[in-house]
Amino acid sequence: VIAVDANGADLGPAEVAAGAAIAAAQGVRVLLFGPATELGPAPEGVEIVDAPASVAKSGDPARAVRATPEASVVQAARAVRDGRALALVCGGGTGAALAAGLFEIGRASGIRRPALALPLPVPGRPAPVTLIDVGASAEVRPEHLVQFAFMGSAFAQAVLGIASPRVALLSNGVEPERGGSVVRAAHERLARAAPAPAAGLATGLGRDGGAMAFMGNVEGDALLSSAADVVVTDGFTGNVALKLIEGVSGTVLRAVRDAALGSVRGRLGGLLLAPSLRAFRAAADPELQGGAYLLGLRSLAVVPHGRFARNGFAAAILRAHAATREDVVGRTHAALRDAGALRGEGAAASREGAASEAS
Amino acid sequence: VIAVDANGADLGPAEVAAGAAIAAAQGVRVLLFGPATELGPAPEGVEIVDAPASVAKSGDPARAVRATPEASVVQAARAVRDGRALALVCGGGTGAALAAGLFEIGRASGIRRPALALPLPVPGRPAPVTLIDVGASAEVRPEHLVQFAFMGSAFAQAVLGIASPRVALLSNGVEPERGGSVVRAAHERLARAAPAPAAGLATGLGRDGGAMAFMGNVEGDALLSSAADVVVTDGFTGNVALKLIEGVSGTVLRAVRDAALGSVRGRLGGLLLAPSLRAFRAAADPELQGGAYLLGLRSLAVVPHGRFARNGFAAAILRAHAATREDVVGRTHAALRDAGALRGEGAAASREGAASEAS
Repeated sequence: VIAVDANGADLGPAEVAAGAAIAAAQGVRVLLFGPATELGPAPEGVEIVDAPASVAKSGDPARAVRATPEASVVQAARAVRDGRALALVCGGGTGAALAAGLFEIGRASGIRRPALALPLPVPGRPAPVTLIDVGASAEVRPEHLVQFAFMGSAFAQAVLGIASPRVALLSNGVEPERGGSVVRAAHERLARAAPAPAAGLATGLGRDGGAMAFMGNVEGDALLSSAADVVVTDGFTGNVALKLIEGVSGTVLRAVRDAALGSVRGRLGGLLLAPSLRAFRAAADPELQGGAYLLGLRSLAVVPHGRFARNGFAAAILRAHAATREDVVGRTHAALRDAGALRGEGAAASREGAASEAS
Repeated sequence: VIAVDANGADLGPAEVAAGAAIAAAQGVRVLLFGPATELGPAPEGVEIVDAPASVAKSGDPARAVRATPEASVVQAARAVRDGRALALVCGGGTGAALAAGLFEIGRASGIRRPALALPLPVPGRPAPVTLIDVGASAEVRPEHLVQFAFMGSAFAQAVLGIASPRVALLSNGVEPERGGSVVRAAHERLARAAPAPAAGLATGLGRDGGAMAFMGNVEGDALLSSAADVVVTDGFTGNVALKLIEGVSGTVLRAVRDAALGSVRGRLGGLLLAPSLRAFRAAADPELQGGAYLLGLRSLAVVPHGRFARNGFAAAILRAHAATREDVVGRTHAALRDAGALRGEGAAASREGAASEAS
């Protein structure tokens, strides 16, 4: 069972309900929280809980979540906490999901901070590149980035099916000494905890045989290449990068469209090119990825973009279900434990972390 | 006279010499430092100084610049310091330009740190968007971002001809409380120093009547929009953003090309569309902008990208000449002085800065 908050989508709660129906038709059971009057009759496999109150448009989601226990996202998160559902899907924005997730579901044991992971579809690449964090923590310490690396790696294994994710730190140069002091310290710890495999040898084996390999620093263009499967950064840089990717690809595609509309010759060219470009757009469609994944809670939360249509919400529910089945939370814990990077236990990395946490 | 370092360009010193010849033909005198054997006979208006030693490929430019006083970039910077030239153009990388600029030319009075400004051409926008800093300072304090804002504004006025630049801080949300502690503090100081004009009123007037208006925070996509003329960030985020822009636009354009090559129909469409797309590529051509501008030294330094061809180097030399004529250094000083944001003098903002500088 997946708990779904129907409030917050640009197209309204009925669109989320339509997404839930698609996911339910594929065998996932859904507990749907939202205004019953707008959700229509419950499809097979979907149980509707009337929860008209919404905090999705709040300017201060943390306060709104605290002040509105009856809000749909809070009720959905509580269903996960109480074991009535295994994961949360919330289209009402990352702020609301983060607040409801932290207050109701809680951080997983040993996790310092949750992080938002976003799988970025890259045309021509077999699996998306996962960017973590895209906005949960604007300011981080090295031990946070280390945990984000292991969280992102476990996510790429469990949700994207990448057996041995190559993990890199986003920096302003590939050399280990690039970046600010936080990135440099994280680089040093990750190089110790999960050294890159020499010539195809897998290291850093987790409980289930999956491996994470730290590849060092990458620059911004690595988000669009095959250099790494998981790119780790703070929530400030990750959010700037995400908005920039949306902005640049939109600008270039608009320029192509304008070129195709600017003359008769261009219009004809655009018509001929359109089917091939549709394939590119489909491969780069963010809705297929389900949205952003809030990692580090006791259960997974998925945050589809508010502008998604029903297929995007269906993808989020199906991905949440698959991630639960693949035990992304358990894998994350095991990988962090094996690397001694859990909070309050383990080896040197963890003690250093606790020391700087206290300072 | 502009001092030009001919070493470091991907296409070799002769390509830089060809760029110098183009600029000289338009009336700018050039002092060209590089291997005389490769530079050929000096064109009209170009004086060649034989300086074969290069630090352009050094992994540690600061050390290489110190250790190699005879290097072409060091000699070129010294020519600026000694008044034999008014500005420096160096295609041997930002690291070498920064080191040679700091050691030989020196910081301008009252400037805390130099910054690299990059004018980004945006198709459909009359003037480029200036991103500052794109890599000189990976870690900054609020008073650095405040100075970057005024430096970027003076640059946009003097070099890009924008009368009243709208300046914004890059952040992970538009609200003033977004960003890390450094960005939040810079936001507060800038809002005090240069409040945005209400309904068309120009405020923050500089010595020459030009105005800078602080518009608040913008997100990553603002680099591709009309939201701001100058976008201020630290060198870490700015460098990640820059590489990302190059990566995303390259990926999308490659996808369009692949679509145009994948079928007979697509190939025909691509052929028909090509002339219009060439116009887009020309509008977005980074060579026209001359490269990155190192601001905050006693004289301007321009750093064309190493992969530029002769037209890019010519643009850098012509822009350096124009910026000198428009007194970008003097304008920057005046704007900072008027805002009380110079180091070691002025009003509250400056005293706070000095306090945190000492801490």
